[in-house]
Amino acid sequence: MTLVALAAAIERGDLSPREAVEDALDRIERRDAAYNSFITVRAEEALAEADALPAKTGPLHGVPIGVKDVIDVAGTLTTAASKVLADNVATADATVVMRLRRAGAVIVGKLNTHEFAWGASTTSEAFGPARNPWDTERICGGSSGGSGAAVAAGLVPGALGTDTAGSVRIPAALCGVTGIRPTTGRVPNRGVIPVSWTYDTVGPLARTAEDCALLLDVIAGPDPTDASTTPSMAEPCLDGIERGVDGLRVGVVSHLLDGVPLDPRVGTAVEEAIGELASLGATVERVDARFLRRAEVVQQLVMLPEAAEAHLPWLRTRLADYGADVRARLLAGLLLPSSAPVTGQRARRALAHEARPLFERYDVLAAPEMPIVAPRIGEDPVEVGGERIAYRLSLIPFNSPWSCLGVPTVSVPCGLVGGLPVGLALTGRRLGEATVLRVAHAFQQATDWHERRPPDAV
Amino acid sequence: MTLVALAAAIERGDLSPREAVEDALDRIERRDAAYNSFITVRAEEALAEADALPAKTGPLHGVPIGVKDVIDVAGTLTTAASKVLADNVATADATVVMRLRRAGAVIVGKLNTHEFAWGASTTSEAFGPARNPWDTERICGGSSGGSGAAVAAGLVPGALGTDTAGSVRIPAALCGVTGIRPTTGRVPNRGVIPVSWTYDTVGPLARTAEDCALLLDVIAGPDPTDASTTPSMAEPCLDGIERGVDGLRVGVVSHLLDGVPLDPRVGTAVEEAIGELASLGATVERVDARFLRRAEVVQQLVMLPEAAEAHLPWLRTRLADYGADVRARLLAGLLLPSSAPVTGQRARRALAHEARPLFERYDVLAAPEMPIVAPRIGEDPVEVGGERIAYRLSLIPFNSPWSCLGVPTVSVPCGLVGGLPVGLALTGRRLGEATVLRVAHAFQQATDWHERRPPDAV
Repeated sequence: MTLVALAAAIERGDLSPREAVEDALDRIERRDAAYNSFITVRAEEALAEADALPAKTGPLHGVPIGVKDVIDVAGTLTTAASKVLADNVATADATVVMRLRRAGAVIVGKLNTHEFAWGASTTSEAFGPARNPWDTERICGGSSGGSGAAVAAGLVPGALGTDTAGSVRIPAALCGVTGIRPTTGRVPNRGVIPVSWTYDTVGPLARTAEDCALLLDVIAGPDPTDASTTPSMAEPCLDGIERGVDGLRVGVVSHLLDGVPLDPRVGTAVEEAIGELASLGATVERVDARFLRRAEVVQQLVMLPEAAEAHLPWLRTRLADYGADVRARLLAGLLLPSSAPVTGQRARRALAHEARPLFERYDVLAAPEMPIVAPRIGEDPVEVGGERIAYRLSLIPFNSPWSCLGVPTVSVPCGLVGGLPVGLALTGRRLGEATVLRVAHAFQQATDWHERRPPDAV
Repeated sequence: MTLVALAAAIERGDLSPREAVEDALDRIERRDAAYNSFITVRAEEALAEADALPAKTGPLHGVPIGVKDVIDVAGTLTTAASKVLADNVATADATVVMRLRRAGAVIVGKLNTHEFAWGASTTSEAFGPARNPWDTERICGGSSGGSGAAVAAGLVPGALGTDTAGSVRIPAALCGVTGIRPTTGRVPNRGVIPVSWTYDTVGPLARTAEDCALLLDVIAGPDPTDASTTPSMAEPCLDGIERGVDGLRVGVVSHLLDGVPLDPRVGTAVEEAIGELASLGATVERVDARFLRRAEVVQQLVMLPEAAEAHLPWLRTRLADYGADVRARLLAGLLLPSSAPVTGQRARRALAHEARPLFERYDVLAAPEMPIVAPRIGEDPVEVGGERIAYRLSLIPFNSPWSCLGVPTVSVPCGLVGGLPVGLALTGRRLGEATVLRVAHAFQQATDWHERRPPDAV
């Protein structure tokens, strides 16, 4: 059942919040040994919270939700899938968790992540790899890999992830679910462990664009007590999601289909999805946006020192407790000169300036979300269209531009290659989540890729 | 004659552009040996340009203007008052110079500055100190010291300076002229030698707020080819400048009158000026904004690495050619860890967030622009209300907050202490230059401090 359908069923009284939460906990208990998507299950607390819900709350009344284990839930461990935080009990709810609760959601547990949300495979040394429900020998992507797996496997109808440089979209694509990175600053980051403060955002993963719209409407919006949010209001996403794509202009980012390493079968699936948008009434044209490849360097110049700065206290005291990959990148960030983040932010501003006409001309940009389907756990380098390249490098051209620009981008399932999901990335203007999700919804109304389920999904 | 009066006289045909330019060049030639306010005088070029002006140009038709020697004028040296750039001939006009020319202005020369616009005394080792027209043994402030001196002495009716951390406002205050730092990003920086790219802005200095409004209207506004400008349009400044202060709320920043080192005679002059605003109909109340002192640290964390980054090419090849003070600060910036600018920008965002209610409650904030009148050349430390402190440190609490927040702030002459000018700082909301200048204009309509002239002014 989709999140929207489950919420409606609870609203109608077909099942109670307690039953909905019990179902989720039961599915997690029976199935999650295979996926390792949860780090902490809040079984007792969630049941108590379901029982204690007032009769009427909000649009998520009684809906069980999982949140990535970098997002604080008061009284529960926030481990960030790291030994560094293995004993870290959160003292307060993150703002997004407060908003979920106010809308009636029940947080059933904390989801696996790449250590400290910085990496794209979710293979924590401390907590073990999350496993892809489509093939448990394969990764879920990351860093919100547990969120992708739990939704794909049907353990929860929706989850929160976080996205710095692709961490919502990548697992959405590789696990065959829908996930949106919102405009940076649209969702409050308070109570979320930072990676890179000018890039980080929370974002929802669920089965459909409609589900994501509902979740995003709940968690988004200015928070006057939090400097991380932009004060601007933006259009809500669920209202008007049915308006279709007629008259919208879609720019197909041509170098991401022909110019960087890409599995041709993934390219074909994405081309077909774009064809579907055209047949639904969108104006589709290819656009040369190779200048966006500069985002790949900008991202490193900014993220490495920002992450190192965020980790300074832990680097001083817990260096040995980091996994090898994250530790190496943090040390690289420490060793960069002070000019690196300055050059990075300056180049980023120039890139945003150069990208302005693109977002004036197109309502939505379309591209593959990932160049490949899910690799096997530990497979690195990976084969991408005949080339062998580092997994991390394979995905950067597809993800860095939108993170760097801070614009909203959604991944929707759009095909299967060798029985594994492919994601279509749809990217919009700053604060243009409503348009992006409206296009994604139109695609999902016309196709059934989002309804395909992994072999053992519940 | 004020700039507005001169422009009107030319418009009426009372004098020709050539006559106006000749007058300015004549004054510069006769008087500037005493002030050293110009580094380069464009005598021949300016006369030729005046002769070549079309019959009708714009609101500055035929008006002679000086620009700080960090702003490019095609074919003319841009030295930044440094040996490093002693032979640097600009190949193109800065955007602000293009806009001045399009409005009919004639650039008569390039004005002295603290080396590379980074310092508050304008005592270049390479080009000698600019001298204050009120007492030529005293500094003009800086870094736009030449701009302040040339306007105060009557050599030009208006000038452009640049302001990173006070460089327009400080010389305006110490030289007894009006100068405005606009909202960061309102005026294009293209063609201007950078200090700190997230702080820098060009700003005008002239005799009156009305003059500054005219100049600002000419140079401000988005430039689609320049990433340094914000795309937002803002209210023009000259239209409506007569609307008075009735009903406006003025917040007096109390810790800058009682809480940091301040010459009590300066404090008294500023209090009297604020009393004048109240008598003109503004609602005046004192406001506790001590949290703004955090801006002092934020500024160093950001400016030092940003300046070092901007100077990287010259630091590699011309290190020995810098003056001692600027070189020391650039090396400090190089030696900071990569986390410094990250922490600085993060703290800056938090400070802007915390300041939001202040700007919601008040239309304008009032404070002294400087804690002292102009010190003698070479006098450092200075005496400030009985304490001896470094000149540089004395002014930081008064200037950092507004630079850090990127909001517009004007200095208007509001008194004389020992025969030397005192400046009142009026600060407004982001893009609120029109309000700030309207308050300054109302003050100048009611008082005559801006009409007081130095002993030998022409």
